[in-house]
Amino acid sequence: MISKAQIKWVKSLQLKKYRQEEQCFMVQGVKGVTELLHSDFVVELVAGTEPALTQVSKPNKQPIHYVEATAKDLEAMGSFQSNDSILAVARMKKNQSPKPNPNEYYLVLDDIRDPGNLGTIIRTADWFGIKHIIASEHTTDVYNPKVISATMGSFCRVQVCYVDLMFYLSDCEVAVYGAFLSGINVHDEKFPKGGLLVIGNESNGISPSVEQYVHHRISIPGSGKAESLNAAIAAGIILDNVFRDGDSFGDQGAERSK
Amino acid sequence: MISKAQIKWVKSLQLKKYRQEEQCFMVQGVKGVTELLHSDFVVELVAGTEPALTQVSKPNKQPIHYVEATAKDLEAMGSFQSNDSILAVARMKKNQSPKPNPNEYYLVLDDIRDPGNLGTIIRTADWFGIKHIIASEHTTDVYNPKVISATMGSFCRVQVCYVDLMFYLSDCEVAVYGAFLSGINVHDEKFPKGGLLVIGNESNGISPSVEQYVHHRISIPGSGKAESLNAAIAAGIILDNVFRDGDSFGDQGAERSK
Repeated sequence: MISKAQIKWVKSLQLKKYRQEEQCFMVQGVKGVTELLHSDFVVELVAGTEPALTQVSKPNKQPIHYVEATAKDLEAMGSFQSNDSILAVARMKKNQSPKPNPNEYYLVLDDIRDPGNLGTIIRTADWFGIKHIIASEHTTDVYNPKVISATMGSFCRVQVCYVDLMFYLSDCEVAVYGAFLSGINVHDEKFPKGGLLVIGNESNGISPSVEQYVHHRISIPGSGKAESLNAAIAAGIILDNVFRDGDSFGDQGAERSK
Repeated sequence: MISKAQIKWVKSLQLKKYRQEEQCFMVQGVKGVTELLHSDFVVELVAGTEPALTQVSKPNKQPIHYVEATAKDLEAMGSFQSNDSILAVARMKKNQSPKPNPNEYYLVLDDIRDPGNLGTIIRTADWFGIKHIIASEHTTDVYNPKVISATMGSFCRVQVCYVDLMFYLSDCEVAVYGAFLSGINVHDEKFPKGGLLVIGNESNGISPSVEQYVHHRISIPGSGKAESLNAAIAAGIILDNVFRDGDSFGDQGAERSK
């Protein structure tokens, strides 16, 4: 059975401060834990009810510490989804920013604050085969349990790295697209084989300091009266437009046709 | 100043049971309250801090009861956004289901459960000029304060009505599209001037009982490894595809070109 010390340790990982100290984060639910176990993350602990531990598909590759926990223990450790019957703790990956490949697309997030939005953006990026998200330092922490949960397992395949966005963009040699309320209609844009797609903050959009590095302002046409679209919805629609033409597939397109 | 009885009454509206009894619901924040005041909803009460009451743009059309409240009062009444400095209570509208116009598009929701998803879908529908959402009886309540908040004011322009979906669809004479993981590529579909677009439940998709009424199965292509897209993201991408061709604009298209 799980010990009181372990429960206290897992619970502490709800807070960013302790996640950073421990370099560990928590994953909740059968779907997320299963994907984690079959990813290249190093798993420190899996705790669950006896039926959940039996149900979860276990890889052979690494010795993992499985431990039984009651529903009450799991509720004490979980931050919000008390009906999950299993959770795991894994080691964070190193924060490495990729040098953009001109034949690949990357999402760039300029201060996305809502954990649900960030998680949904990661899941959507994974759907379209995006492998890297470049996030400003004020974007919410990818290892927040609410973010991890909203990714539905996609955190295993999409790497989010945090950078000084102005510094990163100033040194960047690929096409930079940004989503604005006014810009070229995204339906009319002929996208190249790769580039950066910048999505702005939920309230303020793309900040002026980042805007100066955007080469192409694009917008999503709408005939209604909403002032704006949710940031994750905008990201999804833009990705669907970028990847809709066979011509604009770079390395992701090659993977797509497999 | 707001009375204790009023605080208790407003707070009770967090629960569906009391909203139904009172036929009233709560709107939080300057943006939502401003849009509410300029809509055709009947407003029963506006409570806010003195600066917030001054800031909000007041219509002349109806006598509205404005009352001052402290930050502490607002926190006691608000369900989740304690930093909002204003809220309002309005009367629900009658649950009337529209007879589909073949020159207009309608979203149909088959058991959307997450309040954030429902609110984001309403906001997205408003962006594209959709005026009506037909929801199954088990879809989450549009008057839930989290839904209202996520709509960012779009609840004033998009009417959600709850119906027995099988009965509604069985009597329906327009084209019915449904979002599935396998179906015709949404990029290749030639959409007519109007119809119904069915979005399924977050975990289970479109239920078999509803699926039998879907004439056209469509899907969103993706080259990545996510199992599915979030329901609101799927709705946004499908709407962007439906409204992208000038040919497929019906009455909403006419409005668009104004």
